[in-house]
Amino acid sequence: MTTLYGYFRSSAAYRVRIALNLKGLAYDQAPVNLVKGEQRGEAHLARHPQGLVPVLETDDGLRLTQSLAICEYLEECHPTPALLPEHPADRARVRALAQLVACEIHPLDNLRVLKYLVGELGVDDAAKLAWYRHWVHEGFAALETQLSREAGSGEFCHGDTPTLADICLVPQVFNAERFECDLSAYPRIRRIAGNARALEAFRKAAPEEQPDAS
Amino acid sequence: MTTLYGYFRSSAAYRVRIALNLKGLAYDQAPVNLVKGEQRGEAHLARHPQGLVPVLETDDGLRLTQSLAICEYLEECHPTPALLPEHPADRARVRALAQLVACEIHPLDNLRVLKYLVGELGVDDAAKLAWYRHWVHEGFAALETQLSREAGSGEFCHGDTPTLADICLVPQVFNAERFECDLSAYPRIRRIAGNARALEAFRKAAPEEQPDAS
Repeated sequence: MTTLYGYFRSSAAYRVRIALNLKGLAYDQAPVNLVKGEQRGEAHLARHPQGLVPVLETDDGLRLTQSLAICEYLEECHPTPALLPEHPADRARVRALAQLVACEIHPLDNLRVLKYLVGELGVDDAAKLAWYRHWVHEGFAALETQLSREAGSGEFCHGDTPTLADICLVPQVFNAERFECDLSAYPRIRRIAGNARALEAFRKAAPEEQPDAS
Repeated sequence: MTTLYGYFRSSAAYRVRIALNLKGLAYDQAPVNLVKGEQRGEAHLARHPQGLVPVLETDDGLRLTQSLAICEYLEECHPTPALLPEHPADRARVRALAQLVACEIHPLDNLRVLKYLVGELGVDDAAKLAWYRHWVHEGFAALETQLSREAGSGEFCHGDTPTLADICLVPQVFNAERFECDLSAYPRIRRIAGNARALEAFRKAAPEEQPDAS
């Protein structure tokens, strides 16, 4: 059986849950409690020396890390329904939109970084929140422009079916809402996220639906 | 003609230069001076609303963004020599190693983030340097473990030819050296980076070899 080591509120685990659901693949969940520090325990470090989630353990014993690499693996092994369009230029666009979130927003706002700001740099709550929102707005402003300007956009980030870009977008929108970022300047992002969240694959992947939600 | 909008010291542009060189593709360079703020100028924002480099303009007029998406595009359009191995599990490993650098280290240590630390959070030079090195060590320690533990490693990150993982690793090593990070605990990383840097494709992509180097 495929097992996902994740955490209900981890954006990266959330992405993999969406991808697995879109592909219609069954999986067990093995929660790793990031707030309790279980990712730094021996058991999890044996799975992933960086102490991060998600880790996807496949039924043939592979341990895959990095959410986008996992999604690409799922795409290659289970091509239908496709998470990437057919043509290289369109695939590049989808991957770039996904990476705008995964490389430019999320890494700056994840738990270990916020902890460093507070613990090592003595940043107060207001400055931590300002940091969080700053990187969301930097990224979302650019993403909104790209989605509005580029012909490839549709009901979803690319065309009218969900792709890897939506898989990255929805967890980032969830997190932005959690930190009460004002998203009123991003109507296209909100509409696309709304369309995606209406799908069962996204709904079942939502943090509040997970067994470890608290 | 293919044109790369980049900056000699940008890690992400450096990755794309290596990929283009490995594929044997000719390209013009159009430098965007990040220190002078040219990435925020109208001309560059028209190319990329996020004001980042690299942007690769192809000879059929596509404007591609995000270095890993650009590398995957080059791989799909010019499959030989391959930057990714053949089998999905190996491809997932290479992509995960690449993303360990591109999603976990580099985003935290790039120029706009260091500027925010100093400008908005009033962080001093020593704390900025400690921040920089902290994320390099977090990432490299995990990477060193993965490279040492996993059977796929060879003279390069995966096997004995350069892949997308080495394309990400070498610019990160260059940057770590520039910020005088102590890399003595990472012999495998250093050996692989040395092997890669001995290749002409990597050598010609090095920051000091670029027309805008200063």
